[in-house]
Amino acid sequence: MALLAKTKGFIKPEKKEVDQKPKNVANVISNKTPPNPAGDIAKERARTDWDPKEMHEFLEGNEKKSNEVLRLYQSIERDPVLQTKAEYFDITQKEERELVALRINQMTKFIETEPYKKFRRRLQLMTVIDPSLGIRMLVNLGLFLNCIKGNGTQKQYDYWAKSKESGVVKQMYGCFGMTELGHGSNVAGCETTATFDEETDSFLIDTPHIGATKWWIGGAAHSATHTVCYARLIVKDIDYGVKTFIVPLRDSQHNLLPGIAIGDIGAKMGRQGVDNGWIQFTEVRIPRFFMLQRWCKVNKHGNVTLPPLEQLSYISLLEGRVGMATDSYRIGARFTTIALRYAVGRRQFAKPGKKEESQLIDYMLHQRRLLPYLALTYAAAVGTYRLEKEHDLLLENLDKALATNDKLLLKNTINSTKSMFVDSASLKSTLTWDAADLIDQCRQACGGHGYSSYNSFGKSFNDWVVQCTWEGDNNVLAMSAGKTIIKNVQQILNNKKLKDHTMEFLNDASTLSKAKKAVIRIKEHVDDPERVLKAIAGLISKFAVDLIPISHQTWDAIGAQRVILSKLRCHYYLLESFNDKLEQDVKAKSPTRPHLENVMRLYYVTNILGPFIGEFLRFGVISPKVASYITQQYPQELCQKVRPYVIGLTDSFQQPDNFINSLIGKYNGDIYNNYLGEVKSINNPATHKAPYSEEFEQNLKRVALDEREHFSKTAEVAKKLSQ
Amino acid sequence: MALLAKTKGFIKPEKKEVDQKPKNVANVISNKTPPNPAGDIAKERARTDWDPKEMHEFLEGNEKKSNEVLRLYQSIERDPVLQTKAEYFDITQKEERELVALRINQMTKFIETEPYKKFRRRLQLMTVIDPSLGIRMLVNLGLFLNCIKGNGTQKQYDYWAKSKESGVVKQMYGCFGMTELGHGSNVAGCETTATFDEETDSFLIDTPHIGATKWWIGGAAHSATHTVCYARLIVKDIDYGVKTFIVPLRDSQHNLLPGIAIGDIGAKMGRQGVDNGWIQFTEVRIPRFFMLQRWCKVNKHGNVTLPPLEQLSYISLLEGRVGMATDSYRIGARFTTIALRYAVGRRQFAKPGKKEESQLIDYMLHQRRLLPYLALTYAAAVGTYRLEKEHDLLLENLDKALATNDKLLLKNTINSTKSMFVDSASLKSTLTWDAADLIDQCRQACGGHGYSSYNSFGKSFNDWVVQCTWEGDNNVLAMSAGKTIIKNVQQILNNKKLKDHTMEFLNDASTLSKAKKAVIRIKEHVDDPERVLKAIAGLISKFAVDLIPISHQTWDAIGAQRVILSKLRCHYYLLESFNDKLEQDVKAKSPTRPHLENVMRLYYVTNILGPFIGEFLRFGVISPKVASYITQQYPQELCQKVRPYVIGLTDSFQQPDNFINSLIGKYNGDIYNNYLGEVKSINNPATHKAPYSEEFEQNLKRVALDEREHFSKTAEVAKKLSQ
Repeated sequence: MALLAKTKGFIKPEKKEVDQKPKNVANVISNKTPPNPAGDIAKERARTDWDPKEMHEFLEGNEKKSNEVLRLYQSIERDPVLQTKAEYFDITQKEERELVALRINQMTKFIETEPYKKFRRRLQLMTVIDPSLGIRMLVNLGLFLNCIKGNGTQKQYDYWAKSKESGVVKQMYGCFGMTELGHGSNVAGCETTATFDEETDSFLIDTPHIGATKWWIGGAAHSATHTVCYARLIVKDIDYGVKTFIVPLRDSQHNLLPGIAIGDIGAKMGRQGVDNGWIQFTEVRIPRFFMLQRWCKVNKHGNVTLPPLEQLSYISLLEGRVGMATDSYRIGARFTTIALRYAVGRRQFAKPGKKEESQLIDYMLHQRRLLPYLALTYAAAVGTYRLEKEHDLLLENLDKALATNDKLLLKNTINSTKSMFVDSASLKSTLTWDAADLIDQCRQACGGHGYSSYNSFGKSFNDWVVQCTWEGDNNVLAMSAGKTIIKNVQQILNNKKLKDHTMEFLNDASTLSKAKKAVIRIKEHVDDPERVLKAIAGLISKFAVDLIPISHQTWDAIGAQRVILSKLRCHYYLLESFNDKLEQDVKAKSPTRPHLENVMRLYYVTNILGPFIGEFLRFGVISPKVASYITQQYPQELCQKVRPYVIGLTDSFQQPDNFINSLIGKYNGDIYNNYLGEVKSINNPATHKAPYSEEFEQNLKRVALDEREHFSKTAEVAKKLSQ
Repeated sequence: MALLAKTKGFIKPEKKEVDQKPKNVANVISNKTPPNPAGDIAKERARTDWDPKEMHEFLEGNEKKSNEVLRLYQSIERDPVLQTKAEYFDITQKEERELVALRINQMTKFIETEPYKKFRRRLQLMTVIDPSLGIRMLVNLGLFLNCIKGNGTQKQYDYWAKSKESGVVKQMYGCFGMTELGHGSNVAGCETTATFDEETDSFLIDTPHIGATKWWIGGAAHSATHTVCYARLIVKDIDYGVKTFIVPLRDSQHNLLPGIAIGDIGAKMGRQGVDNGWIQFTEVRIPRFFMLQRWCKVNKHGNVTLPPLEQLSYISLLEGRVGMATDSYRIGARFTTIALRYAVGRRQFAKPGKKEESQLIDYMLHQRRLLPYLALTYAAAVGTYRLEKEHDLLLENLDKALATNDKLLLKNTINSTKSMFVDSASLKSTLTWDAADLIDQCRQACGGHGYSSYNSFGKSFNDWVVQCTWEGDNNVLAMSAGKTIIKNVQQILNNKKLKDHTMEFLNDASTLSKAKKAVIRIKEHVDDPERVLKAIAGLISKFAVDLIPISHQTWDAIGAQRVILSKLRCHYYLLESFNDKLEQDVKAKSPTRPHLENVMRLYYVTNILGPFIGEFLRFGVISPKVASYITQQYPQELCQKVRPYVIGLTDSFQQPDNFINSLIGKYNGDIYNNYLGEVKSINNPATHKAPYSEEFEQNLKRVALDEREHFSKTAEVAKKLSQ
């Protein structure tokens, strides 16, 4: 494990630096000064020429939200149950599950006493430091209740959420019975059945075979009392497709009900604190009115009313995606903070002629590896704030339209819903992927110390990556978004412009797609964010136009291209938001402005123009003669502009040590003392023998092979036996 | 956790497929046939039109090695201690450490009874299924002993390895004390001191400050009795730089020696079965002859002889890098097997007009995600076999040259050593990175089931990724390799051609770098591997020539480009090996040949030409008019040629279930029964309440908020109190 190292002959930057010449080092021991990372970090912190609180307000969207977030950080840090502890990185799966259960209990104290929006923000923050807690509560508060809200009548919602108090995690605990062992992304293919029995006015819920076993159901193994079960509605031998049903799993004594078989699905890559389970139903009978009947209804005679506007019933699924996009910002902030503090505090190899080793961050490659992620995180902050706001507005308008029967508002809302489906899909998929890469790259940038659990990378990565798979597998989501984009462009080319839609920028697709002249032709063009937006719009248009003919034959063959379109759409959204917010909210003389401008440029040069340069060139949106400026020269220039302020830029995320939860990433920058100190306190060096030491020692002290072989294979015996 | 899902309105491939029309499904329960992945896999297996054993011999290099590997697979599978078990995915860190210790004991039974080369192969295979075991043994057998061999005299080696039996893991156990808390890659910067005390003819080993604490030392926390300590040699106040010293840590009773402070560094992202520790030395005295004195010597009067040829002392470090490159092949084989079996057995969404859902592998995007990794694994098999052979030959020649004092052989060997440093660095870094991506992508391709521990992705990824960091951080290694490549090209341009060097293909650099005409101009050119090799050589030459002027000012600014050069060098090596072996070892009429040809093309199109297309275009090595053929059309065509044989191609890796160690990846393909069956056996569903259930239930049943607030906040009380 020891080798984070290379040989002398091959590691040093300059051959001449090999320390061949002996040199005088009188008074050997005491003249060695220990490293002083805290000093380096403090020095660079002092360079910050803006108010981090002001920057935080920019990142969080506004002053009010910034204050709320800061107060919540404080509340969590002080809470004896919710606060993080380095020693928790050592706990077992069983202990983690218990810790999460205790934290759920603690969280319920707040759910009944603080405004619900504030509680949701608390939960969102807790989700970053304890993702198992997050999803375990969101299964009930998000998925279960949103499903009832979206698919049930108001009375059904009121009953389960309010009378039965699942909305405050009381009396009952709901889980989300959608995924089956054999069906994940294809929800419409679920095979659990809900067969109507007219005689008893009830449904029989049944698992027809192993493939229809509900699987991965968070909270099912031990916590949930009820599930919302996705099952095929069968009435009078007719299959009406997948609908939703409330099915009780455990009685009021928390014992399993008859016909319910449940088991723990066991160990997972991450989120070990969640009791995911599998469920098999065998002739489980539920009253007819346990079916969620907002859109699809079955009356007691078995007459079925099909939904008028099924799409609306899926709006409730958007919340999860919007949340994951926002999570990506916060986790990105957390890990860029750790990696950049380390990169400033850590020194490695001395430059020619220097005695002191260089700070990691002063290596160009190190800047190129980390600073684009810092810039992306800034863009993600602004973009996901906008996404959250648009999502809130959508739900508000929908409720209003339905309550007042306002048809025009409903129509507009449906348009916005369409763009929200694309936007949330492309942001969720692009940003959760990027965040996974970000954590991994930041870990690698911290070398061996990135591999220690106490620095948070391992557990966070493992807990994180499922975000790329659940609530819409990223590839499936991105292909879906890409498909809609192509269809939108086609519709625009047919002169049906988009309205009440975030992709109205594509309404020029016809002109954009025919443009002969490259949008970005000279270096100066790269500095203009409006032009860059136009370039992305141009690329999307040309790319889509190129794919339309193929799409008429097969969508399948252009899966990879649809994913690229989805990513481009995400980045358009982020850049547009960043640029707008910068223009609207940041005063010309604000000390934050020059830094934000550099960060924004670094963001789009290294996250958009660079990675997609092949496409930009292929479609002639960028001139070949600026290509290597964009991919090589300019990123380095921008990195060097941002580099001096990395401590201030990460401090501006304002995440306290409790939230950062990393021994090498603490604010005071005293990397080595923080690290060794805590490692010693968690793993007492006085215990210097392992529990299994005896067996190990005995084997080291084993007798010679000859003796173990009863001396029967010796030359002497061979001689005897061969006679 | 439940949501691996998307909404009906947005998931299906074709809108028309929404199951809006009710259909008759009389006899609902029994007419549902369960999924039959085993049948699908068996059907595709039958398609294999070659002998997997013959293919295995191609992959392993020759028949003898293939047989040895297969016999070892069998031996490991039957061994009660070494065999894998799904339930091990549930064990805690403490249990894992104990399991690894027991396995070490078990392995020592073989080390004394089978040929050492066979034992090393056994250990290499065990390293894939139990990486903690692998590194824990290699710390002693590889790093510790190689260091003694490389830096000690023959007598020193004989003493520690043979008399003291550390070569058979008996009496003593060595660890590798190189890395310090503040020094990883920069070994020459280590600050532990070894000060010569003439009076007592001994060295004082000392840790001058916290930054010099030895850190990450595998085996130090509980197992090791000795360490080879990297420390600055100080004689008569003169610092001679970092040398190596044997320092005893524990006495024969396995108790820590005076002056030795050791602690466990605790929880890690992976390799939890290794007892990594930290060590601080305080005035630890060792006899002078514990210093390894092959190259650098100190006599009893404190006269220091410096090494004549220091570079040779680092050859011993190559073994680890070569081993990690080979590991990349085997881990790649393991995970492509799992993901491709799953992709054949799993069905998702029905194509228009089809009743049965499609197999995952029939989606173009799925092919594009997985098949390039399969092809890369084939290339890695052949390339790393060559690397192993070249490394063996090198050590043989070196021993021979030194033993016979053959100066010519020594000179040639030194030349080969130089290319081995570049080759092992670029293969180690490129392939360990690729393998990390491969595991991660294969996991994502298995959707939610990839996240279950029992399918092996999570633990393997966590155990794997440290390979990108240790024994030469990948970026540091790759930059070093890239630097040598640039220097080599410069040397060639100065008319000093390479000799006895694997990069002799660059001897044409002058012509190659000046070539005006693109090497690949038409589609047919892409089919010719020789031409592709020439294109890579051309790109490396032009790229290097481009960088030479910058390198004269700063190597730092071209760090990223040096990493690219290193990757290109790795791929040249792999393709050259693949193509040579195909031409030399595979008969024209062998049924394996057409498949190998397709796989090789898929390898270089999707792993070399595609990913580096930007560079190939920028330097005019590939004509722009074939660019989109290379990145889009041709990869799909090649994928479709390989697709029908994915079961046979992965079966040919011949890894048994015990080695695959994944419930969804077993040979019989009975994915769902294997999975649910084992999950039930490990997590007994009869235990349906969590140990912490009572606290959780009590909180659900808590009394109303009013009561918990002592009824002091009611309207009634408010009225009273406001009077």
